[in-house]
Amino acid sequence: MTAAPTAKRADAQRNIQAILDAAAVCLSKDAAASVAEIAQAAGVGRVTLYGHFANRAELIDAAIARAIDEGDAALAAIDLGGDPRTALVRLVRQSWSAIVQIGALMSAGAATLTPERMLELHSRPVSRVEALVRRGQEAGAFRSDLPTTWLVSTLHRIMHGAAEDIDAGRLAAAQAPSAIAATALAAFTPPGHPVPSLEEWS
Amino acid sequence: MTAAPTAKRADAQRNIQAILDAAAVCLSKDAAASVAEIAQAAGVGRVTLYGHFANRAELIDAAIARAIDEGDAALAAIDLGGDPRTALVRLVRQSWSAIVQIGALMSAGAATLTPERMLELHSRPVSRVEALVRRGQEAGAFRSDLPTTWLVSTLHRIMHGAAEDIDAGRLAAAQAPSAIAATALAAFTPPGHPVPSLEEWS
Repeated sequence: MTAAPTAKRADAQRNIQAILDAAAVCLSKDAAASVAEIAQAAGVGRVTLYGHFANRAELIDAAIARAIDEGDAALAAIDLGGDPRTALVRLVRQSWSAIVQIGALMSAGAATLTPERMLELHSRPVSRVEALVRRGQEAGAFRSDLPTTWLVSTLHRIMHGAAEDIDAGRLAAAQAPSAIAATALAAFTPPGHPVPSLEEWS
Repeated sequence: MTAAPTAKRADAQRNIQAILDAAAVCLSKDAAASVAEIAQAAGVGRVTLYGHFANRAELIDAAIARAIDEGDAALAAIDLGGDPRTALVRLVRQSWSAIVQIGALMSAGAATLTPERMLELHSRPVSRVEALVRRGQEAGAFRSDLPTTWLVSTLHRIMHGAAEDIDAGRLAAAQAPSAIAATALAAFTPPGHPVPSLEEWS
């Protein structure tokens, strides 16, 4: 008598995962992807999808929340201790491609979710990066004449810029992590201090 | 017998200018602004608008082309000679707000025009900035270990990022030109060379 409900729950869980996977793929490619397209990509009917997510906004919210949870777990596993410059280079090399992928999903979300909800959704991973930048500023390794939030935003923009340049054929994907890390390291260097070469800190 | 056609032509010119002004304002605020909204903001009927622009894409193309022409004329008037670092700071201070404004319009265009047309539209102003960056690289003032196009893209992203940070209340508008110039100067500095302070080069 208990096997049937358990199987049903497992089915539901599988459907939810398939829908969220499909939402992440479809919305990253096309921010305007419809619920019908996402249901089709997930291999479920629209009625099933609406059984789990009341509307498109709820679905987008759940897809972003899951992607950020996974990204944050990956970020938490990166050693951000030691010299802040080494930690920055390590962060870029190990996280840039995941951050860029989530960024495409976040862009889709920005058209649907409120700015407050968007901030809330990615506050945990952003605060990890902020903590590293602040630590670097306090240690004198990173410049303090510009706000921490500005340096964090700059790092994000350099990362997303690399993705755009790869898409446009202006940058080889293999070159991206070095270009991002070298540019961010330089942008963070305090005035009067020499710009570190990438080899020095990786 | 000639007064009437001349007056008609002047009327048409005024309408075209009003439509392009309205398109720039409406599309910068909302990339999805409709032709009907733009006609209303311009104070002309839709029939009049369609008399000058066959469709929404043609209107967007013309609005971007005009904004870029004006921006390029402003850029051409900036002295980009002398030390490349001083020229870079001058460029940022005198052009960032116009570049950011055109950027909002270009984002609206990206949804409608082909990537090739978008590149063609802003190739002239981009090549002016590229020439400065290349000259700086050749003179050893800017780093040569990263491609010229990467440095140019980075500068643009830092500028547009400043606009986003101002909108989000994370950066004071008055602080923006200094933050942009300081960040770009650092990002462009060759490894091993000291990051210049802003005062040094402005």
